[in-house]
Amino acid sequence: RSREMAKLTQLIDNEVFRAYATYATIVLLKMMLMSLITAYFRMTRKAFANPEDTASFGKGESAKKYLRIDPDVERVRRGHLNDLENVVPFFGIGLLYALSGPDLYTALLHFRIFAGARITHTFAYLIPLPQPGRGLSWAVGYAVTISMAYKVLKTALYL
Amino acid sequence: RSREMAKLTQLIDNEVFRAYATYATIVLLKMMLMSLITAYFRMTRKAFANPEDTASFGKGESAKKYLRIDPDVERVRRGHLNDLENVVPFFGIGLLYALSGPDLYTALLHFRIFAGARITHTFAYLIPLPQPGRGLSWAVGYAVTISMAYKVLKTALYL
Amino acid sequence: RSREMAKLTQLIDNEVFRAYATYATIVLLKMMLMSLITAYFRMTRKAFANPEDTASFGKGESAKKYLRIDPDVERVRRGHLNDLENVVPFFGIGLLYALSGPDLYTALLHFRIFAGARITHTFAYLIPLPQPGRGLSWAVGYAVTISMAYKVLKTALYL
Repeated sequence: RSREMAKLTQLIDNEVFRAYATYATIVLLKMMLMSLITAYFRMTRKAFANPEDTASFGKGESAKKYLRIDPDVERVRRGHLNDLENVVPFFGIGLLYALSGPDLYTALLHFRIFAGARITHTFAYLIPLPQPGRGLSWAVGYAVTISMAYKVLKTALYL
Repeated sequence: RSREMAKLTQLIDNEVFRAYATYATIVLLKMMLMSLITAYFRMTRKAFANPEDTASFGKGESAKKYLRIDPDVERVRRGHLNDLENVVPFFGIGLLYALSGPDLYTALLHFRIFAGARITHTFAYLIPLPQPGRGLSWAVGYAVTISMAYKVLKTALYL
Repeated sequence: RSREMAKLTQLIDNEVFRAYATYATIVLLKMMLMSLITAYFRMTRKAFANPEDTASFGKGESAKKYLRIDPDVERVRRGHLNDLENVVPFFGIGLLYALSGPDLYTALLHFRIFAGARITHTFAYLIPLPQPGRGLSWAVGYAVTISMAYKVLKTALYL
């Protein structure tokens, strides 16, 4: 099977595909970071969603009061969901885009702008920055994904 | 590296893979559309989740009243989350299915029915249509994904 | 086009890629199962989110009382969202990892531990098990994904 393995390695050796793999991994790791930030806020704000998560704070009513909604926790969770809504299309459409034969410079431009926009979006959400900071960073990432989708459909369209 | 690039281009030249790329992009774009519809309802219903989003409506209490839950906004958000829950498995299992060597006719049938079911689901959710309209369109997309998963596991199973 | 199809088939013939396809499909199917469990709890607890879903229980006020939040339904929904937050990174980073040329034994170790951790997480959430059962199963899956991301970036990094 070494010949097939060689072919796979060639895919990961392709520069556009390597750039895609790098930036896709970065934005997925950034999205995963939201889980840790949520856990941090749940613990420092003592605001949990499940009774079993508050058991270490005592029994009965004394633990029940930590089953509550906290605005900081909810803010991180909204940021996390927004990541899911935007990183999933980037990952999917970006993969097809990377396979559609774009030139390296154009592909890097798309990937870098998307990653920068989503990192900015996270800071804008968590600090929070005044609008339209968050809105613009969201729109830039959205536009990059649409641009890649256009290239995929132009190259591959088969209905 | 032109030889490797040629190989990548061959992947996107394959008809099953092109059909997958087309329908995967369509359903991901449709999912992305939910963000715009949410933004539209948030602005027309004046119902926001973040204090900084209401700052342009005035200061203090006059802006605070727009931090509220609106049933139309929540409906679109439920539709968006339902898309995530169903389009993600389609994208992932569909990619593996497209690489598992299905015949073109069968693959197109799967992709077309899934895309049609999800577009129907969105209309059923947003109009809304009486049940079981939304439930059936959801079930059709679900069944298509299960059918592709069966083919993937039959072809590739390696535990 | 039979030559190209042959190449695609070679991808699915590669043992690492077959293992990836198998475990990715398993965890995506497990995630899809959460939809059915949600539907089951919504119907047995009679707790719905959309007015049109309660129409079969009567008209007006008699149906309205079923538009409510149920703790069991919410628990399954939190488990489903947690799946999305963790299975999406596994699918994406795992795909790139499978293409980065890991040895079969190491790759299988990653995929098996992740799948086991997520299945454990679901049981821990739904039974529910006392903490840190759910927390640990979440952390194991998270760590496996980070480990794969490290390999992808080490192999493919192209900024």
